[in-house]
Amino acid sequence: MSFNTFGLLFRVTTFGESYQQLSVRVGEWYASLRRTFLDKRRPGQSRFTSQRREPDSVRILSGVLEDEASGREVTTGAPIALVIENVDQRSKDYSEIRDLYRPGHADITYDLKYGLRDHRGGGRASARETASRVAAGAIARKIVPGLSVRGALVQMGSHRIERARWDWNEVDRNPFFCPDAKQAEFFADYLDGVRKQGSSVGAVIEVVAEGVPAGLGAPVYGKLDADLAAALMGINAVKGVEIGDGFLAAELSGEENADEIRMGNDGRPRFLSNHAGGILGGISTGQPIVARFAVKPTSSILTPRRTVDRYGRETEIVTKGRHDPCVGIRAVPIGEAMVACVIADHYLRHRGQVGEPPPWPFPAR
Amino acid sequence: MSFNTFGLLFRVTTFGESYQQLSVRVGEWYASLRRTFLDKRRPGQSRFTSQRREPDSVRILSGVLEDEASGREVTTGAPIALVIENVDQRSKDYSEIRDLYRPGHADITYDLKYGLRDHRGGGRASARETASRVAAGAIARKIVPGLSVRGALVQMGSHRIERARWDWNEVDRNPFFCPDAKQAEFFADYLDGVRKQGSSVGAVIEVVAEGVPAGLGAPVYGKLDADLAAALMGINAVKGVEIGDGFLAAELSGEENADEIRMGNDGRPRFLSNHAGGILGGISTGQPIVARFAVKPTSSILTPRRTVDRYGRETEIVTKGRHDPCVGIRAVPIGEAMVACVIADHYLRHRGQVGEPPPWPFPAR
Amino acid sequence: MSFNTFGLLFRVTTFGESYQQLSVRVGEWYASLRRTFLDKRRPGQSRFTSQRREPDSVRILSGVLEDEASGREVTTGAPIALVIENVDQRSKDYSEIRDLYRPGHADITYDLKYGLRDHRGGGRASARETASRVAAGAIARKIVPGLSVRGALVQMGSHRIERARWDWNEVDRNPFFCPDAKQAEFFADYLDGVRKQGSSVGAVIEVVAEGVPAGLGAPVYGKLDADLAAALMGINAVKGVEIGDGFLAAELSGEENADEIRMGNDGRPRFLSNHAGGILGGISTGQPIVARFAVKPTSSILTPRRTVDRYGRETEIVTKGRHDPCVGIRAVPIGEAMVACVIADHYLRHRGQVGEPPPWPFPAR
Amino acid sequence: MSFNTFGLLFRVTTFGESYQQLSVRVGEWYASLRRTFLDKRRPGQSRFTSQRREPDSVRILSGVLEDEASGREVTTGAPIALVIENVDQRSKDYSEIRDLYRPGHADITYDLKYGLRDHRGGGRASARETASRVAAGAIARKIVPGLSVRGALVQMGSHRIERARWDWNEVDRNPFFCPDAKQAEFFADYLDGVRKQGSSVGAVIEVVAEGVPAGLGAPVYGKLDADLAAALMGINAVKGVEIGDGFLAAELSGEENADEIRMGNDGRPRFLSNHAGGILGGISTGQPIVARFAVKPTSSILTPRRTVDRYGRETEIVTKGRHDPCVGIRAVPIGEAMVACVIADHYLRHRGQVGEPPPWPFPAR
Repeated sequence: MSFNTFGLLFRVTTFGESYQQLSVRVGEWYASLRRTFLDKRRPGQSRFTSQRREPDSVRILSGVLEDEASGREVTTGAPIALVIENVDQRSKDYSEIRDLYRPGHADITYDLKYGLRDHRGGGRASARETASRVAAGAIARKIVPGLSVRGALVQMGSHRIERARWDWNEVDRNPFFCPDAKQAEFFADYLDGVRKQGSSVGAVIEVVAEGVPAGLGAPVYGKLDADLAAALMGINAVKGVEIGDGFLAAELSGEENADEIRMGNDGRPRFLSNHAGGILGGISTGQPIVARFAVKPTSSILTPRRTVDRYGRETEIVTKGRHDPCVGIRAVPIGEAMVACVIADHYLRHRGQVGEPPPWPFPAR
Repeated sequence: MSFNTFGLLFRVTTFGESYQQLSVRVGEWYASLRRTFLDKRRPGQSRFTSQRREPDSVRILSGVLEDEASGREVTTGAPIALVIENVDQRSKDYSEIRDLYRPGHADITYDLKYGLRDHRGGGRASARETASRVAAGAIARKIVPGLSVRGALVQMGSHRIERARWDWNEVDRNPFFCPDAKQAEFFADYLDGVRKQGSSVGAVIEVVAEGVPAGLGAPVYGKLDADLAAALMGINAVKGVEIGDGFLAAELSGEENADEIRMGNDGRPRFLSNHAGGILGGISTGQPIVARFAVKPTSSILTPRRTVDRYGRETEIVTKGRHDPCVGIRAVPIGEAMVACVIADHYLRHRGQVGEPPPWPFPAR
Repeated sequence: MSFNTFGLLFRVTTFGESYQQLSVRVGEWYASLRRTFLDKRRPGQSRFTSQRREPDSVRILSGVLEDEASGREVTTGAPIALVIENVDQRSKDYSEIRDLYRPGHADITYDLKYGLRDHRGGGRASARETASRVAAGAIARKIVPGLSVRGALVQMGSHRIERARWDWNEVDRNPFFCPDAKQAEFFADYLDGVRKQGSSVGAVIEVVAEGVPAGLGAPVYGKLDADLAAALMGINAVKGVEIGDGFLAAELSGEENADEIRMGNDGRPRFLSNHAGGILGGISTGQPIVARFAVKPTSSILTPRRTVDRYGRETEIVTKGRHDPCVGIRAVPIGEAMVACVIADHYLRHRGQVGEPPPWPFPAR
Repeated sequence: MSFNTFGLLFRVTTFGESYQQLSVRVGEWYASLRRTFLDKRRPGQSRFTSQRREPDSVRILSGVLEDEASGREVTTGAPIALVIENVDQRSKDYSEIRDLYRPGHADITYDLKYGLRDHRGGGRASARETASRVAAGAIARKIVPGLSVRGALVQMGSHRIERARWDWNEVDRNPFFCPDAKQAEFFADYLDGVRKQGSSVGAVIEVVAEGVPAGLGAPVYGKLDADLAAALMGINAVKGVEIGDGFLAAELSGEENADEIRMGNDGRPRFLSNHAGGILGGISTGQPIVARFAVKPTSSILTPRRTVDRYGRETEIVTKGRHDPCVGIRAVPIGEAMVACVIADHYLRHRGQVGEPPPWPFPAR
């Protein structure tokens, strides 16, 4: 399996599978990052997310050094290696269904590709892998000066939030990362019902990156939006990605879709709207980058589904285990992290290719 | 600009900008491909697409040799280089607006990134570049035995087709690549209205790939769906990408979303539905791969829009030129080509990594 | 630092710096590899190599699973992650010279590039990193059926071995990996002298890979010899690389250099000599691949050398620490590993690109 | 064939085979580059190089635009595509030996890999491809401010130049790019003899790059010397690569090999020697980068050699055609170009990764 890395200059490589045990020690330097970001992804924080306990403590193996002059920890230029512990390892959970395929789950494609799969959990497809992404995103955020990347759940099942009620402060006040306080109350009841039925439901997540310099990306195959699409579609269970108005853009006229431009007070172009989601022709405009992605409902449900086993026998399956009724909730910090990683990578690429950006506006002739 | 290549083992590199003139001679070998695919993309075929005439004739510069024994042309292993001519070059079209930014167009991000842009057309962002993609796709289709990749326009503006009327044969019978004959009639009137107003409208395209072997892709960062998302989002004017049920998956319950499995007559697993769009955990299931993408309306419209020029002066812009009222139409063959290229690349990767796929089902113990 | 990976389909990523401490547990599966290969690289095995003790025990973190049917450990397709412990950590060794640059050592280029360096050892340039390469090579050897990769020291200082006395069996019988038993005796005395003077000396290593299928590589930029050159030049302290006759080829006439061809008993072409070192036009011929590389003497010597410190002050330096008088000795297993990794990568690439190699000879017309 | 590109941020992709015909028009902008560099590589300039006439005229297809304000041609950020014409196409030259393998030539490995080869010349392995490299190198030289890259032939057959007589001015005064005027006179007689015998001879080329900033490269797998080794070993017929003292370094003691350091008048470190060839630990020191490579004698000779044909029949071969008695001569500008490309790529990488280099020396505490 060769494809465990993403990024060109900001490169992230992950390894590990579900249910690997590591003994770790948390360094102070990274601990502050952990509290901010990894905790968001962590299951078991409310009755709405998986009851597995994954403290996600992190140990730095290389790449960081205490600077003696300042007492601060600094990066050395060497690769920053992080190991994330999994202390709550109960690999027997899946033993009953180990030879069966869960409809909607990747265990069948593993068998068809590799001829085996790791019955101790989801293998590489396990949601555990995403903790590494969140950690990588925490580092990425430090690379681009002034970058802010925030995510929010904007739809659960068929229930959307009311955008007029959007309040970023609400995101941390409810277990759904929902910016609409009123809808979050509804989600609590709604998801309780889903959970009690042993069912599951999907969600839509929106990520907004502010402070992205204009000029990141490239016009043809290193497009910023193409890389964001890959990064977000590459999150477990994601089935759709939008930039800016996304699929709604297909319904707009050219007049509606045009983000008109005036001069801003800072002497830079100021867009009067952001249908483009901050990207035109694969290159950032300087506006906030807005991306959305759809997360399907988990395949681990209590209702029996028809399936076959690895030996070609037809049967039915029920997944008991400990599972999230809405895995989309935990995808919020993962989406943030992927966006941060892509922007950091393009920030470095742009610096390499172009160096100092050209001064704008150009001198009139 | 370093990013003019996509793919890992099936690599496509393009160069050229809008309005480059080349004198070319069409080889017989490629002519047959041209008629099938390049013509689909070509503008000026009806009143609904750009009135520029781009015959898209293709010359093979390297990589193909006539085999003396068989008289057939074969690839030599050397890179297949194609040059596509542009005979209808009128670079003065844009002279009036050469220093203005079209709202919703990439000319502003080019200036912000590079400090200049090619006023002779869209530069690298020109839709001309996509002819190269279609040509690459024609080659990609030949790599995977039994592969079929077909695209169709399924929505124009807010008007969707009726899926019950889907007929692939209709796609080539109307100028919209629309599989719903009745809706195609409506589109003709509708788009005439859009064109007469000097406006533009978006569209949604669906691409279906059949004959894709199970097992292509990888579980984490070389996911087949992630690469498809990048490839489709990397097409000009695309703002959203879906695999399978896409954003609708967020609204489904786990029960609804599960593609149940039985044994097929061929001794392989047979899925009873395809919400997944042929990909689970980043790996192909053997079902048809279904992808959709949303194309925004072109920014070239006759209604004046507020903008600024390169020198920071506020003004208004009207784009006269020759433009498509619905650029999404011409995106159909491009989308097909990108899907074909991604599948061909993953086909080669899979063969490299795994070699012969494991026999399935496994022997029962 | 983005560049911690090599290979395209067989990808190796390393992290870590000199003197990282990890607590590890050695799995049985890998233990057998360890005894064969990692022990060869390990310092402290004789008075001729560094007196640091690096047991190089290895723990597998992911990618390997015990197959229940067979009881054997198999790879899962997930990335194989190995952690190598360093138990003999004495980071104070270098404290006296921490602000000084050792002439011939990379500490100055680290400072010039990054503005800091890890004073606890060589940082990423530490020879510790090479243990990872040896481990990767052990896995690479398992990928290509029938592959054998063996290395030997063929020159120390200006003293070459006598090729007529070459005996692979001798390589493991002396502390120099020297295939010439008589010259190995001389090296023992010679290197004792070097060591006692606190000096150091260079060496030349030869690596021979047998069982390499014909056809690996590519004609232009993925040349097998180019990738071997990068892999070997990328080993610490290496200053020259040769394939086949190497620099001697410049002195040959075309007649001398031609490896004439007859038909072998196996119906394949049989070369009557191997000046080419098993590679023609960047592609393997099926003959043994022969590569050599030159290792410079270590810069850590007891004789004072003129230098400056990080603050621009002129001074002198003496490196005490624990060092090898001939670091080339330990480069033997590293060179083997790099060659094995490159061949494994090209083996997978070739399978991806070409699939089954064409049958040879071709049917006569 | 996927591997037609080198470089990460300064990427060069070539296509084409021997004897492709293109009709081209030479732009003025590039003409000046052509006269400087491409002419050096061009065959048919003296009786000592191939009597094929390859005017190597170059046409720019994209990426360059005339700036109206200044009247100068500037790059647009789009890929710079160049096409190089081959007007002297006589593809029948090889018809007699088209089914035979030349000992020491890549035609056999092509057949073993691909099952066919282009009998119209060397296919992708043709020396024609190297004209593209020279053109790429001409662009690369413009990227790094103050960079100078010069090459010279320092050995022909077993005859070395006298380094005390090195004069860069002599390089352009003899047909051998030889910096030793006296030895160049000897080479003329010597090579006449080789040519008259229908034989061939190898050579060693040295390339020196001055004005390379300190800090380019990376410590582990993106080493500057590793990339140079790959680039030079990837030139046709090259069998060995050295950096700095190269294989001689193996014979030095640590004392001899140490490049002692003093403070320079410019406030930067000044090395008192350059055994390292300008690279320590994979990173440039700021000294001149010195690389050498060995070119084997061409396999195209008049003396019969034993071989087999594609059908497995034993026979003999004589290569008539038009060939260089010493292909190493024409490798001089190619070596320069490869070095320039690698340095340009690392210059961009370094700017991306590190941005502004740290000020040196550091403030004393």
